Amino acid sequence: MISLNETHDPSLSSWVNSANGGQSDFPIQNLPFAIFRRRDSGDDWRGGVAIGDQIVDMMAAVHAGIFSGAALAPAQAAADSTLNRLMSMGPQSLSSLRKALVKALQTDSAQRTTLESCLLAQADAEYAVPARIGDYTDFYTSIYHATNAGKLFRPDNPLLPNYKWVPIGYHGRASSVIVSGQDFHRPCGQIKTPDDGAPVVQPCTRLDMELELGVFVGQANALGEPIGIGDAEDHVFGLALFNDWSARDIQSWEYQPLGPFLGKNFASSISPWVVTMEALAPFRVPFTRAANDPQPLPYLTSESNSAAGGLDIQIEALIETSGMRRAQTSPARVALTNYRHAYWSVAQMVAHHTVNGCNLQPGDLLGTGTLSGPTPDSAGALIELTEGGKNPIELPNGERRAWLQDGDAITLRGWCERAGAVRIGFGECRATVLPAR
Amino acid sequence: MISLNETHDPSLSSWVNSANGGQSDFPIQNLPFAIFRRRDSGDDWRGGVAIGDQIVDMMAAVHAGIFSGAALAPAQAAADSTLNRLMSMGPQSLSSLRKALVKALQTDSAQRTTLESCLLAQADAEYAVPARIGDYTDFYTSIYHATNAGKLFRPDNPLLPNYKWVPIGYHGRASSVIVSGQDFHRPCGQIKTPDDGAPVVQPCTRLDMELELGVFVGQANALGEPIGIGDAEDHVFGLALFNDWSARDIQSWEYQPLGPFLGKNFASSISPWVVTMEALAPFRVPFTRAANDPQPLPYLTSESNSAAGGLDIQIEALIETSGMRRAQTSPARVALTNYRHAYWSVAQMVAHHTVNGCNLQPGDLLGTGTLSGPTPDSAGALIELTEGGKNPIELPNGERRAWLQDGDAITLRGWCERAGAVRIGFGECRATVLPAR
Repeated sequence: MISLNETHDPSLSSWVNSANGGQSDFPIQNLPFAIFRRRDSGDDWRGGVAIGDQIVDMMAAVHAGIFSGAALAPAQAAADSTLNRLMSMGPQSLSSLRKALVKALQTDSAQRTTLESCLLAQADAEYAVPARIGDYTDFYTSIYHATNAGKLFRPDNPLLPNYKWVPIGYHGRASSVIVSGQDFHRPCGQIKTPDDGAPVVQPCTRLDMELELGVFVGQANALGEPIGIGDAEDHVFGLALFNDWSARDIQSWEYQPLGPFLGKNFASSISPWVVTMEALAPFRVPFTRAANDPQPLPYLTSESNSAAGGLDIQIEALIETSGMRRAQTSPARVALTNYRHAYWSVAQMVAHHTVNGCNLQPGDLLGTGTLSGPTPDSAGALIELTEGGKNPIELPNGERRAWLQDGDAITLRGWCERAGAVRIGFGECRATVLPAR
Repeated sequence: MISLNETHDPSLSSWVNSANGGQSDFPIQNLPFAIFRRRDSGDDWRGGVAIGDQIVDMMAAVHAGIFSGAALAPAQAAADSTLNRLMSMGPQSLSSLRKALVKALQTDSAQRTTLESCLLAQADAEYAVPARIGDYTDFYTSIYHATNAGKLFRPDNPLLPNYKWVPIGYHGRASSVIVSGQDFHRPCGQIKTPDDGAPVVQPCTRLDMELELGVFVGQANALGEPIGIGDAEDHVFGLALFNDWSARDIQSWEYQPLGPFLGKNFASSISPWVVTMEALAPFRVPFTRAANDPQPLPYLTSESNSAAGGLDIQIEALIETSGMRRAQTSPARVALTNYRHAYWSVAQMVAHHTVNGCNLQPGDLLGTGTLSGPTPDSAGALIELTEGGKNPIELPNGERRAWLQDGDAITLRGWCERAGAVRIGFGECRATVLPAR
């Protein structure tokens, strides 16, 4: 497991002034990766690293001779048009690159003059999905979400008997993962209400968000070779914000007996910036279970998972309706939750996914599932916040929402903060619901 | 929809003698594609076309100047190390290439001498998965399979209410699709019997096959743009044999509420040869429903689907146990079924998958689901053939199987035959169960 080192030193600051002062999501202690280009330029996509309100163009920085030694190969990989090759290199390479970036970006760096010409303002950039996602798996790691959602279907028995043993997951759609800023059309599909004799095809009327984190896989494992829980985090590159849009009316008619399909695979939004596991090291928290819960099976148990398998990441979802945009009022928070409430850790997801020999590949995406917390206002989906649509939420401008309407934009934001560490953030993951075609 | 043309003429024969006489899976009327190289050569993978017991090395044939005009671009794409680019080109390009191949391979072709040097015997070849599979979706198109499997869980109500309306599908794992000839280890996983208080991790004891066809997607659709049923087959490249291995004990404990996951994603075997939709044109059959079944919704209905949406493809599964190998006795057939019994057609799978705007990409794989037919011996999985393991099947050598044992090899074979057409085949899809690690 990655531990604290000099790159986490809270006294570090950067010659990129916007990175300093504790307001930016991207101080020198963060250094997340994305795939970007100058907006509307039609340039080739390339990798970048966020610092304050700027992006280090990794291709330019490599050509300028910023990197050498063990940092050179990962820096070159980080200049590719996807992050897959960087992801495949593993945590040591990534750590070398991080140290080199800190050296180049810190206040009084001798490389400042050279690197200054390799920056692009984030305001002038557009982004792509950060990796070529081979397979996308969605988990179900919040016991609060599983309980809330289960209550709607099985009031007397909300949590299924396997939940506290199995980190439940299922395969989702990789092709329809879109990057923050790309909007999507309300999906159509078969919908059948209990009162109708037959289904009809129509636009979804119960469109929902799902507040999640996305875990990008780093190093691969070979088919047939499980990853032990002690090694699991060595196969993880980093985390991003993830919104797994859901059409609840399509989902409820189609999902028996094989699970969600068209209710999910029309779009899932990912944030451009991927925060590395090393950047998250200061925000680890113990990962414990209620005393009367079963101990996880041995393949899901390790000392480091119990001691620091959790991550203290705050995540909020904001809604901006067309009405708010017209009136120029601020988006309204609909949920605030924390990843530390998850019932299964990142390492447990990886160990479980591979216990049967299933092969993970660099750039594969694991969704955490909706990260609802223990309180009603920490639920990460409208189906929970509105109790299946029965109790619409009231927004500050007087509008009400049981489900999302056309023109609604949802923005996820995430950040980590604790005494003695510099706050780091995830940027945002945003998309607007366009009308059905 | 592709109709019959001169390339289907039953009087056509080839100067590759092994292609003639009605015994080969690969007469000149078939011409399926694969990715191959000389066995143990370590050469680059490249595309090939089967003819009799030979392979046309497409890279060599392109370099030898066999192709020109409209056939040149698809021939060059067919020489790639995956079939994805060829798949993306659509049916017109593929049809031009087919005509050029027939011209070059038919008896008395002027190109014979040139092309003879571009052949490799199939006996000397090894194969790769034919495409880089972006997403793999498994459907559930046999109503007999759905009913048989449903009976084991819900004896009084085997078929769920959505079955006759929705072509049920779910996302599977692309990374663990392996090519015929590659063996796999029995998976381990969480297993809980009704009598045990807690699950244990152990090797699967209820390992099963699933006899399916795999449908390779051709041309893409853009995210947000459904494919109408009338255009659906223009987005299909061709079909292959597919065995979706299943660990029933892992599956039954994990699958609620989100569907199959580790019970499936340890391995799925695909045949190397992909038979194009055009080659299958002579074997189309009407696709009808029982009079009292609901009419499919309009997005799943077209005249061509009713008239010729079915495909008359026979498929058998053979088992070869270690005992049979030792005694050098022939493999034993465990099932024989026909794709014409499917409840949902290839075009209906494509139209349904995209009705919500989900984007299909060239090389994506759609499994038909287990293709059980109406009779007990046409069931495509042991869970049906043995009624959940209760009634083991007896093999000709006296062995019995409730589930697969280590050393068992399953081979799928498929073929089409009817009066007035030349028989075509799919080759085989084979893998052997290795012991758990």
